[in-house]
Amino acid sequence: MQVMNADWTTTEETIAQKAFDTAYKREIGSLMAAVRHQVGSLQEIDDMWRLHDFLSVKRHEVDGRYDYRLPMLVFVFAGLVKDGWLSIEELEGLNADKIAKIAALARM
Amino acid sequence: MQVMNADWTTTEETIAQKAFDTAYKREIGSLMAAVRHQVGSLQEIDDMWRLHDFLSVKRHEVDGRYDYRLPMLVFVFAGLVKDGWLSIEELEGLNADKIAKIAALARM
Repeated sequence: MQVMNADWTTTEETIAQKAFDTAYKREIGSLMAAVRHQVGSLQEIDDMWRLHDFLSVKRHEVDGRYDYRLPMLVFVFAGLVKDGWLSIEELEGLNADKIAKIAALARM
Repeated sequence: MQVMNADWTTTEETIAQKAFDTAYKREIGSLMAAVRHQVGSLQEIDDMWRLHDFLSVKRHEVDGRYDYRLPMLVFVFAGLVKDGWLSIEELEGLNADKIAKIAALARM
């Protein structure tokens, strides 16, 4: 098995990329649904500024969260598992040490 | 006619308050319609960040524009007329000097 990065095999990279994309699509989908819902009940100016605040927070979270650099991936996945965007089972195929680290970090 | 402020009679204040509220409701109504429209065609993440940028700009504009302090009102009304949120006719009843100033500033 070819090792592309010090710690990640090509097989692991494929699994990681897929899991990363899955979580991203899930979170963005959920975010778009939440925006549609908020706009559906838009009544007054304060509702609009609440939507603006909500988008400011979410944009900051999403920009910070989806950092696909191999040395960061264990932390990225831990955050995604912790916040419910990914299940630990979807990382099956990564080596046992990585899975254990991700699971432990996700419980913190 | 009682003068409440150095330059504004109570009659003028009533007219000003009504015009101010009218413009505000118009602009906010238009803004909410624009937000609903953008959300109606929400397809991908970039559409959502475009909505966020749009709201950031509009919030800044609205917060800056609707400044109900008598010494500022001539400038506020000039901006509202210039940007189409108020017609000069809706200020009828203010004295001729104020109307002339507002009209002149709105053309700048």
